[in-house]
Amino acid sequence: MSTGRKKVIALSGGVGGAKLAHGLSKILPADDLLVVVNVGDDFEHMGLHVSPDIDTNMYTLSGFANPETGWGRVGESWNFIEVAKELGAEDWFSLGDKDLAIHVTRTHRLKQNHTLSDITNDLCRKVGIECRIVPVTDDPVRTIVTTDQGELAFQHYFVRERCNPAVTSIAFKGAEQARLHPIVEAWCESDELAGIIVCPSNPYLSVDPLLAIPGFRSMLSEISVPIVAVSPIVGGKAIKGPAAKMMAELDLEVSAVTVADHYKDFLSGIVIDNLDSPLSQEIEKLGMAVKVTDTIMKSDEGRAQLAKQTVDFLMSLSASDARNS
Amino acid sequence: MSTGRKKVIALSGGVGGAKLAHGLSKILPADDLLVVVNVGDDFEHMGLHVSPDIDTNMYTLSGFANPETGWGRVGESWNFIEVAKELGAEDWFSLGDKDLAIHVTRTHRLKQNHTLSDITNDLCRKVGIECRIVPVTDDPVRTIVTTDQGELAFQHYFVRERCNPAVTSIAFKGAEQARLHPIVEAWCESDELAGIIVCPSNPYLSVDPLLAIPGFRSMLSEISVPIVAVSPIVGGKAIKGPAAKMMAELDLEVSAVTVADHYKDFLSGIVIDNLDSPLSQEIEKLGMAVKVTDTIMKSDEGRAQLAKQTVDFLMSLSASDARNS
Repeated sequence: MSTGRKKVIALSGGVGGAKLAHGLSKILPADDLLVVVNVGDDFEHMGLHVSPDIDTNMYTLSGFANPETGWGRVGESWNFIEVAKELGAEDWFSLGDKDLAIHVTRTHRLKQNHTLSDITNDLCRKVGIECRIVPVTDDPVRTIVTTDQGELAFQHYFVRERCNPAVTSIAFKGAEQARLHPIVEAWCESDELAGIIVCPSNPYLSVDPLLAIPGFRSMLSEISVPIVAVSPIVGGKAIKGPAAKMMAELDLEVSAVTVADHYKDFLSGIVIDNLDSPLSQEIEKLGMAVKVTDTIMKSDEGRAQLAKQTVDFLMSLSASDARNS
Repeated sequence: MSTGRKKVIALSGGVGGAKLAHGLSKILPADDLLVVVNVGDDFEHMGLHVSPDIDTNMYTLSGFANPETGWGRVGESWNFIEVAKELGAEDWFSLGDKDLAIHVTRTHRLKQNHTLSDITNDLCRKVGIECRIVPVTDDPVRTIVTTDQGELAFQHYFVRERCNPAVTSIAFKGAEQARLHPIVEAWCESDELAGIIVCPSNPYLSVDPLLAIPGFRSMLSEISVPIVAVSPIVGGKAIKGPAAKMMAELDLEVSAVTVADHYKDFLSGIVIDNLDSPLSQEIEKLGMAVKVTDTIMKSDEGRAQLAKQTVDFLMSLSASDARNS
C-alpha cells in the first residue's frame, strides 16, 4: 500500500452502518472519510421530504441520535405530531418536533432546487460533523418491497407494517436513471483512496440500493483498492432490523456466509463476529480474506474499536490479492 | 326586517376581529354565522404556507388562542424553531411546535391542489368550530406595505420590522385577479341574510384587503341589508396593533370618525366606544347610525356582550334608512 493512500469510503444504511461510520469518524481525519448513504428509504410524509438513513448517520455522527429508538433525536418532544394526528394526519410515522426542523429545512431547500447532497452537507456542518456525508445520488431512488401483501413503498413496509409482510422481492425505483454522486466517483478514482468499507447494514435494503446505481457495482468490482464488509448477520441473527427475517423469506441461509456471497464480486475481505468464527473457512472459499472479531458495537468505544480493526484489516489487504474474480 | 333574515356575515382580520367573531359564534346558531377572513397577511415561511388571520380566528373561536401573545396557541412549545435556528433558519418569525401542525397540514394539502377554503373548513371542523370560517378568496392576495424603508411584504413590516417603518401606502398584490369566495357571494345574495358586521380590525391592513377583491366593495354598497362596523379606534388609540401609528403616518386623524368615513359608502351604522361618545354627532353627519357602548372585550363574556349589542344594533337598522348614498 502506498503511503499516499489514506482515504476511506464507507457505504452505509441506517443504524448499524451509522454506528460504524461514527467509529470511523472517530479514528480517521475528517478529510479522509466519505460516508456514502442510501436514499432508497427516502419518502414524502405530510409533504415533507424525509431521508431516514441520511438523518440516522447525521444524528449518530453528531451525537444527537436517540440510542433507545434507533431513529430520531435524543431528548425529543412530540407536540407537533400529536396535534397533526388530531387534525387527521396519518399516525404510523412519528416526526419529533426537533427532528422536524431537519425535514422542513430540507424540503424547503429541495423546492428551491438545491441538491440533496448540498443540503446534507450544509446540515452536517451546522450540527458539527466534519467528515463528508453524501447521498449516493442526488436523483430519486425509492425502494419498493414486493410482499405477500403486494408492493409496498419502503417506509410502508418498514414502519407502517413493521416488516410483517413476507418479502418476495425488492426493487429500486428510479435507480436506473440515477447518477452516482460525482464526489463518490471522484473518491473512487482518487489515488489517495486506501479502500472501501461496506458497513454492517442490511445488504438487501440498505446496500443493494447503493449498488443499483448504474456503473457503481462494476466500478467496485474493478477498483484497484481493497473493499471489505462488516457482516450485519451475527450468529444467524440480524443485530437490528428485518435482515434475518427477509433472508429466510427469500430462501437464503441466515448467515455471514450469505452476506459474503452477496458481495463476493467486489469484496477483498469480510469482518465477521467471534460467534461466527467457524464460518471462516467457508467464506475464504468464496475468495476473500476473513477477519474475526467482536462486531457488536455496544458503546462509542466499541464503534471506534471495530472501526480501527476494520481499517487495519482493509489496509492489510490489496484488491488483487484476495478478490474473487 | 323579515323574520326569515337571521344570517350574519362577519368580516374579520386578526386579533380584534377574531374576538368579536368569537363573541358572535357564542350568540348565533352556527349555521347563521359566516366569518370572512383576510388573507393579505398570508406568506410562505420556510416553505410553509402561513395564514395568520385564518389561524387567529380558528384558534380564537376554538379556544386554543394564546391570550398573552395575541398570536399562536396556548401551551405552545418551541423545540422545532430552536433547532431550525441552529440550522440557519431566519429567526424573526416563530413557529410553535403545535402551531406547525396547522402549517404543515395546510401546505401539504395546498400542494395537492386543495383550496385554502376547503382546508380551512376541514381544520375548523377538526378543532371543533361549528360556524363557517372562510378566506375571502382562494386566490393569492398579498399585502405590500410601502414605507420609508421601501416596499415590505406584510409580515416583514409587521413582525420582522415590528411596524417601525413609516407607512406611505398599502397595496394588495393579486387582489385584482382574485375572485370573491363563492360562499361569500351566495350569503350576500341570500334572502336569509340579516346583515354584515365589519369587526374591529385594522381598516387599512385587515379590512381593505377584503374590500379590494373586485366587486366586493360595490356589492356591499348596494346590498339590501344593513352593514355595521365596530370601530377598532377607541379614544384616539388602537386597541392593538399599528392602526393608530399608521393612520398618523398617512395623515389621517386617529379617530373613530376616520374609521366611519373610511367605510361610509357601505355602512348603515357604527359601534363606537363610550370614550368616543362625543364623536357621535360628527359620525351621524356622515350618514350612518351610531351605537355607543363598551367595545373593549376583556373576557369571553365581554366578547359575547359586544357581539349581542352589535347584532341587536344591526337588526334595528335597515340598509336604506341610514346608508349614505
